Amino acid sequence: MKNSATAFAPASIGNVAVGFDVLGHSFQTIGDRVTARRIAEPGVRIASIGGLVCDLPREPEKNTAGMAVLSMVRDLKLDFGIELEIEKGIPLGSGLGGSAASAVAGVVAANALLPKSLTKLELLKFAMKGEEVASGSVHVDNIAPSLFGGLVLTVGIDNPNVKQIPVPPSVRCVLVHPHMTLSTRAAREILNRSIDLSNVIWQSANLAGFLTGCFTGDLRLIRESLEDVIIEPQRKVLIPGFQAVKDAALKHGALGCSISGAGPTVFAWCEEPQATAIRDAMVAAFAAYKLDSDAWISTLDPSGARIVDGG
Amino acid sequence: MKNSATAFAPASIGNVAVGFDVLGHSFQTIGDRVTARRIAEPGVRIASIGGLVCDLPREPEKNTAGMAVLSMVRDLKLDFGIELEIEKGIPLGSGLGGSAASAVAGVVAANALLPKSLTKLELLKFAMKGEEVASGSVHVDNIAPSLFGGLVLTVGIDNPNVKQIPVPPSVRCVLVHPHMTLSTRAAREILNRSIDLSNVIWQSANLAGFLTGCFTGDLRLIRESLEDVIIEPQRKVLIPGFQAVKDAALKHGALGCSISGAGPTVFAWCEEPQATAIRDAMVAAFAAYKLDSDAWISTLDPSGARIVDGG
Repeated sequence: MKNSATAFAPASIGNVAVGFDVLGHSFQTIGDRVTARRIAEPGVRIASIGGLVCDLPREPEKNTAGMAVLSMVRDLKLDFGIELEIEKGIPLGSGLGGSAASAVAGVVAANALLPKSLTKLELLKFAMKGEEVASGSVHVDNIAPSLFGGLVLTVGIDNPNVKQIPVPPSVRCVLVHPHMTLSTRAAREILNRSIDLSNVIWQSANLAGFLTGCFTGDLRLIRESLEDVIIEPQRKVLIPGFQAVKDAALKHGALGCSISGAGPTVFAWCEEPQATAIRDAMVAAFAAYKLDSDAWISTLDPSGARIVDGG
Repeated sequence: MKNSATAFAPASIGNVAVGFDVLGHSFQTIGDRVTARRIAEPGVRIASIGGLVCDLPREPEKNTAGMAVLSMVRDLKLDFGIELEIEKGIPLGSGLGGSAASAVAGVVAANALLPKSLTKLELLKFAMKGEEVASGSVHVDNIAPSLFGGLVLTVGIDNPNVKQIPVPPSVRCVLVHPHMTLSTRAAREILNRSIDLSNVIWQSANLAGFLTGCFTGDLRLIRESLEDVIIEPQRKVLIPGFQAVKDAALKHGALGCSISGAGPTVFAWCEEPQATAIRDAMVAAFAAYKLDSDAWISTLDPSGARIVDGG
């Protein structure tokens, strides 16, 4: 039981091409930090918001980290309040699970202040309350990977089953974030509500092949399966140069390349030796469409959100 | 290199509720037997067809086992011919992969006569040629489980990837075959060509949860995931009493219950101690709809088609 603690929660890739709304994986290289501090007055107070994004709501009910911690304070009927300092390391509207990471970092930091800490599965529900503020509906495909780490399957909403899926250790994820924003709502609204059966079967084969490839360490099967035939063809028109960026990644040996969550960030899976060349080729392809971008490389390390400073 | 060999190929359950056209599993308790005998005259000759079904075509090109072995004889340019005796243990039109089992037993028996035997993956392509005769199109979701055994994922048609998926050893499959027939073509024609996105997401969650439950031995996750929300609701109207049979299985503790392949056979997964009670309840439920039925229980033993007699 501490008076103050700082948690780091990694960014995350929702969907992972083949698992729309059910798969996600953490991206360790970037993330949000939240410091929680015990205060005498009840409720939640946001003391500061800094880093890449500063113009977020300061009212706890309208802030993802604030609302997540507030739902925790209320549910546990805590006899103290919590003050939050939020340090954003994830660009807004990037499709990298920034709102989820803030909510997760908030509850993980607050958890360190409790007389008896909660499990990650218990924290998940509070983080979801925060994510709801940002997305307007309940989604766990960014929350769970940021909290648990690595490649994560989440099924069920009321009592989610969360399963970490092994990934061959040589795999790296390359992320390229073009300097444009896309709203999650707009990216959802573009989707057809009805899908051709032949594509449903094809995507099922890809999802099953991808998971089986991960569980059995079969990189060839991962390569043949990591392809989104349902969502990506509809959303790629929202991202200038997407096809050129994807072609560049695949030409340099990527196992697969698709849109991170609702976009516009593009991710590629590859093996470690190819990662740098793939990153550079993807950045160059966006540049040809006059889009500057930031790019990072991460392992698929299964460690999730964690306390980085506290005492 | 033998002059004669007999192979057994097990029945199989296509789709397994959540993996339409990509998953299947063998059912060891029943199957077809084919004896292959070396003869001097070239080509393939069907000497006899016996067992549960006798009125199948005797011309090799129109018979699944005949066509499978014929494609093998032609492709390998064998300097001898093969005579086949087919013993059907799988009822026709039952949704238990009978045509696939005959094709598989044919190529496995014929393989024992070759100077150098082929791998199962090589045999798969020849068996597919036989299955094509029966179904009018190329499907491997019954061929692969009958040939390899256990729960099998097959993705890709031209160069199929076949993966055996572990199943917790306590799991049993109960099969109940009502005395009626359904054509695979009719069962395919009833399907909508377009699926609602929300059901696609739900089914993806079920498929991913089911596979992950199998790989991690999580029976609770298997139970929560073994549910077909896309195909079963459309096909169940073709099977009188289906809902009552399913309800009976679930009431007695089944992990899940759905239609085997294109039907009308219904299967349930359960743990070993519940298997007999579930079988009896399902048979009774069909009887209430004036349908007699046969019923069997099998392990999910990962052994597939095999030589049972030859020398």
